[in-house]
Amino acid sequence: MNLIGASICDEELIVQGEARDIQLPNTEHVSQISVDVGGSLAKVVYFSRKPGTKGGRLNFRKFETEKIDDCIAFISRLLEESRANRPGHEFVIKATGGGAHLYYDRLRETLKVNIQREDEMECLITGLNFLITEIPFEVFTYSETDPMCFEEIPDDPFPYMLVNIGSGVSILKVTSATSFERISGTSLGGGTLWGLLSLLTGAKTFDEMLEASQEGDNRNVDMLVGDIYGSDYSKVGLKSTTIASSMGKVFKKNVDKRQFKPEDISRSLLYMVSNNIGQIAYLNAKAHGLDKIYFGGCFIRGHPITMNTLSYAINFWSKGTIKALFLRHEGYLGAVGAFMKHRSSRRNSRSFTLSEQLAQKLADPDMADVEVKLAQDTLDVVADEESD
Amino acid sequence: MNLIGASICDEELIVQGEARDIQLPNTEHVSQISVDVGGSLAKVVYFSRKPGTKGGRLNFRKFETEKIDDCIAFISRLLEESRANRPGHEFVIKATGGGAHLYYDRLRETLKVNIQREDEMECLITGLNFLITEIPFEVFTYSETDPMCFEEIPDDPFPYMLVNIGSGVSILKVTSATSFERISGTSLGGGTLWGLLSLLTGAKTFDEMLEASQEGDNRNVDMLVGDIYGSDYSKVGLKSTTIASSMGKVFKKNVDKRQFKPEDISRSLLYMVSNNIGQIAYLNAKAHGLDKIYFGGCFIRGHPITMNTLSYAINFWSKGTIKALFLRHEGYLGAVGAFMKHRSSRRNSRSFTLSEQLAQKLADPDMADVEVKLAQDTLDVVADEESD
Repeated sequence: MNLIGASICDEELIVQGEARDIQLPNTEHVSQISVDVGGSLAKVVYFSRKPGTKGGRLNFRKFETEKIDDCIAFISRLLEESRANRPGHEFVIKATGGGAHLYYDRLRETLKVNIQREDEMECLITGLNFLITEIPFEVFTYSETDPMCFEEIPDDPFPYMLVNIGSGVSILKVTSATSFERISGTSLGGGTLWGLLSLLTGAKTFDEMLEASQEGDNRNVDMLVGDIYGSDYSKVGLKSTTIASSMGKVFKKNVDKRQFKPEDISRSLLYMVSNNIGQIAYLNAKAHGLDKIYFGGCFIRGHPITMNTLSYAINFWSKGTIKALFLRHEGYLGAVGAFMKHRSSRRNSRSFTLSEQLAQKLADPDMADVEVKLAQDTLDVVADEESD
Repeated sequence: MNLIGASICDEELIVQGEARDIQLPNTEHVSQISVDVGGSLAKVVYFSRKPGTKGGRLNFRKFETEKIDDCIAFISRLLEESRANRPGHEFVIKATGGGAHLYYDRLRETLKVNIQREDEMECLITGLNFLITEIPFEVFTYSETDPMCFEEIPDDPFPYMLVNIGSGVSILKVTSATSFERISGTSLGGGTLWGLLSLLTGAKTFDEMLEASQEGDNRNVDMLVGDIYGSDYSKVGLKSTTIASSMGKVFKKNVDKRQFKPEDISRSLLYMVSNNIGQIAYLNAKAHGLDKIYFGGCFIRGHPITMNTLSYAINFWSKGTIKALFLRHEGYLGAVGAFMKHRSSRRNSRSFTLSEQLAQKLADPDMADVEVKLAQDTLDVVADEESD
């Protein structure tokens, strides 16, 4: 597989909840599939050939983990097509995330392929390293005036911090392509917001919750500094508009609880979770002397208020010294990393995985111009492109 | 006023939600009153003479800020008694917290006394310094096996960190009796827990919520590492019992939300808020090189699960290097501090406030044996003891 010229298929601004395909114009005939099964969502990455050309694309799909059988059925259809193209070939699926362990037997027995499990944190970092060093127009900063300001591909991306926000949050410090550490985390993540809002607002999907939050006014449920002081508390630098207590206006004995609107609660809790993650991220970045923070995971979904809150929190706490960075394939870091762990099916001692090639390139600045590729003659058969 | 021999009136283990009176055996005839009005609770401290003796006691009362008129009526009754004992005297009330500003006019017009406002953070620190350096059996560490292990009164209490948990959370770094800084805070505080639980469980009081949490099992609503992995994720040191996502089991489309029990939700959210405060406290303590963290504010209420979770979080993150310290008068730091700002009513240039005397003593080790006192002939008239 040859990654030269890899690019995102669509240069439109990011679409909420959707990850754009990545085009690989110099690659063909690959049927590799990977899956990253988290606590709430299962993410699938697979390669499909572009009919009539030498290239193809990486495709991205996600399923609720609750409906893991739908995900397995989807992979099964991909495999069937590949098998039709390449009878007798032994296919391999790379699996990561906790569900690679929890659902290992079910995956193996249903799909009847070799399921190779890869470490979750290693896959996150491998996938992220690939996206930030190989894919143009992938990484961006967010501000209300410039919602998608793309970053140049860095000469040396290290060190950096990754804050991966799924059901829970993992915080990793990354010092080279192969050295990283999970330095912190918090249980206050996407699953918390989804769980609380599904109980409090009756919203059925995460997108419904995000839409509601856009209409809401958190000041109807949050207690602001001004609600306590009647003004700023300027002596310690607290503005009257600062949130003193999230949901702090709700607990009053003589108030009809139905007066609190779902959209206001949605916005308050989205702020609460995002602010909190931003604050913990900042404190860890400061403790470890890191000035770049990548935010990944399916919590963000390209949602403006979420990115704005995370950016605001990092900027506020760090006084502008630390940068919050976002990704267009934020939710697929682990699945992309697992995908890159595929090894050529030939028993060829010269065959390196994409992840190994990338690591070598990142470790040796002199290799900066070397192509990250697999020899074309060692590639697997392609799965046809799957439409949504 | 003479603080020599000050002690807590009752050596029983702490009673949830109740602060024990502090006995001042060598003081008499004081009518001083202070009030600390926060976002959710208003705290009153006042001195009452012990009939037939020279001493008396500091009394502690709290009211919901929502019912500020009850609080003002209570203070009004105290004042009436004082006025009866000392007609013509101009009384002063020290007020702190945001409500000292928000309700300033109402306090002044209803009580018809001189309301002197004192800075909230300064009062917190003054009150805390008094409690930790002058009151035996006030400060303790918590563990399940030894729920109230009292600390010795320290020779030099500085530097330390105060995490004050009211509706919201303020984090202060204190380096001497007079130098401190509000270094951080979070909007995820008591008001958040009370607000969410009043919506989710129908509980009417905070004590009901705490009682329910004692019966609950958070594993029915929290997503644990084991729920995602089926086991430990030992490579990064996560046990299967670690909470990966607070409330992470709730968001499933095909689940009847009524299956989630109020007591399980109460325990989950109590853990969530306490863990989160512990984590942010630890990160700030580490950033500022502090190894003692005092937890104050009305959130804790002597509640074992809360103290256990805060202690566990500090111990876990700091690997045992930082100590979580609790106080029996945790909720009254600001009100005690404001009380200590009272100045003798005589226009006497030699009159120092208690807080000034304490600050001088703490600043000068040679003054360690000097009494912190006001000359007895400058004291105000006493208010009678108020029973609950």
